[in-house]
Amino acid sequence: MEKPYAIGIDIGGTNTVFGVVDKRGHIIGKNAIKTSLYPEANDYADYLAKSLDEIINTVGGKQYIKGIGIGAPNGNYFSGCIELPPNLPWKGVIPMAQMLTDRLNLPVSLTNDANAAAIGEMTYGAARGMKDFIVITLGTGVGGGIVANGQLIYGHDGFAGELGHITIHKNGRTCGCGRKGCLETYASATGVARTAREFLTERADTSVLRDLENITSENVYNAAIAGDALAQEVFAYTGQILGEAFANFIAFSSPEAIILFGGLTKAGALIMNPVKESMENNVMNIYKGKTKLLVSELKESDAAILGASALGWEIKEF
Amino acid sequence: MEKPYAIGIDIGGTNTVFGVVDKRGHIIGKNAIKTSLYPEANDYADYLAKSLDEIINTVGGKQYIKGIGIGAPNGNYFSGCIELPPNLPWKGVIPMAQMLTDRLNLPVSLTNDANAAAIGEMTYGAARGMKDFIVITLGTGVGGGIVANGQLIYGHDGFAGELGHITIHKNGRTCGCGRKGCLETYASATGVARTAREFLTERADTSVLRDLENITSENVYNAAIAGDALAQEVFAYTGQILGEAFANFIAFSSPEAIILFGGLTKAGALIMNPVKESMENNVMNIYKGKTKLLVSELKESDAAILGASALGWEIKEF
Repeated sequence: MEKPYAIGIDIGGTNTVFGVVDKRGHIIGKNAIKTSLYPEANDYADYLAKSLDEIINTVGGKQYIKGIGIGAPNGNYFSGCIELPPNLPWKGVIPMAQMLTDRLNLPVSLTNDANAAAIGEMTYGAARGMKDFIVITLGTGVGGGIVANGQLIYGHDGFAGELGHITIHKNGRTCGCGRKGCLETYASATGVARTAREFLTERADTSVLRDLENITSENVYNAAIAGDALAQEVFAYTGQILGEAFANFIAFSSPEAIILFGGLTKAGALIMNPVKESMENNVMNIYKGKTKLLVSELKESDAAILGASALGWEIKEF
Repeated sequence: MEKPYAIGIDIGGTNTVFGVVDKRGHIIGKNAIKTSLYPEANDYADYLAKSLDEIINTVGGKQYIKGIGIGAPNGNYFSGCIELPPNLPWKGVIPMAQMLTDRLNLPVSLTNDANAAAIGEMTYGAARGMKDFIVITLGTGVGGGIVANGQLIYGHDGFAGELGHITIHKNGRTCGCGRKGCLETYASATGVARTAREFLTERADTSVLRDLENITSENVYNAAIAGDALAQEVFAYTGQILGEAFANFIAFSSPEAIILFGGLTKAGALIMNPVKESMENNVMNIYKGKTKLLVSELKESDAAILGASALGWEIKEF
């Protein structure tokens, strides 16, 4: 019998979402657990395996599952390990593919979460038919999935596309990776909140954000659409920096499109307009007006599940 | 009869070098003309065609030539045009492949000079056997040729790899491309001379460079090996900036090696040591100690000729 389903898992700094996917890219069932509740990787793997078992049983059992694909920050396609993840609760090198194989007796393949999103966009989303594009994930962190000549770029060690850790400002904000000035410290959801706090400290103008204890990117978004000038400037600043970074990415791989994916894209024109303007202002003449700036056409969690599940179909055994 | 030779042409801002190459990568004969002497692209093409005819006759005539490959700044593989080149005497879009076909009645293919160098390194040089590497050309300008998954990255429009125009310092030095702070304004031969002039203006310490009218990168090199502290610091500064840029390139495509090519590599340890130190200091932990920093194993002009000639073998007609 040909096995009709694959499983896609997206491991994020806050949540882990997973689903059973059929060959046509329909998500048959999905669920989520809190990544941040498990400081020990073994406890996490135990609970994730248990949750996967439940969802596997809803489609009739393991005999119907071809394989499992995982998208995770710092996920290494070649080794099946999550290596030195700055935004996950675990330290060191976590052999997550092997850990799930041990628990579920199913083959597991693993890659970077942004690479998984890129595969999802290419197969089911905004990048259908494109051979050269970049997916940028704007969530708790910032990630990149780069496709050139129709192939995902893994690099010699499986770690290509760490676009959240391109240095934007020398001696800029301290990053979870231990360095300074990474794109992620400005353009992630946490980076947006950080910009808001900086603006409030440095400036004296009124803002509804001044009344809040802990500012989140959602607070900044809500304030901005309600007309708060400072909150709007936070998005303008974030978009300016993203556009500058994109101008450099374009000089590197000259993609047909840069596709934005993740929570921050919910801010719509508030973020997209300044990104577009900054990108066009900063690219070399030969690139002007040529690179499409798109938002993912897939539902936020689905793209990562679908992309990861695509790995599940063409599995290698570890 | 199978045609035994291809021609490789490297168009640089100062010189154009070209040669007849056999299938095993031996350069049978070569010659050069001064690019900068021809403000009109048509005059240049006339003279280049005449010079090519001479070298073609030395191997028995056109019937022995399979095709011509050209490496040129801003050369577009897809269109065969040199488009808006900042460091060449000509403005606009120059259909150089067609111009040579018209004059010589031979098929011509064209790409970026740095892409041609990358093909040369992959076929005959330091990148033999590698599937993921970057060649950086350090000459009048700075260029990049990026290979991932064993393939050259051209991008959707043929203009990938413009690594000399990655922005290094926002609002930094004015670049020939019309923007500011490009890597090329610091790390090219002219960038090195510019750094020396800046240091001499800003500082008061003695240096043999103070006695010179027009400082070139060769002057800086000669002063540095003679022990001139200021000249040595010019190379340290240049290496620091290159290493910072390479740390970002590594986050992008995670190459097995970065291969330096061109005039500036003659400075040897003076430039390579600070580049290596800066690169290792600036990369993310997951990349530390993994990327080889190499110098081209091909003779300076040969790599570009060989790389361009490789295009000549697998020609498409325009």
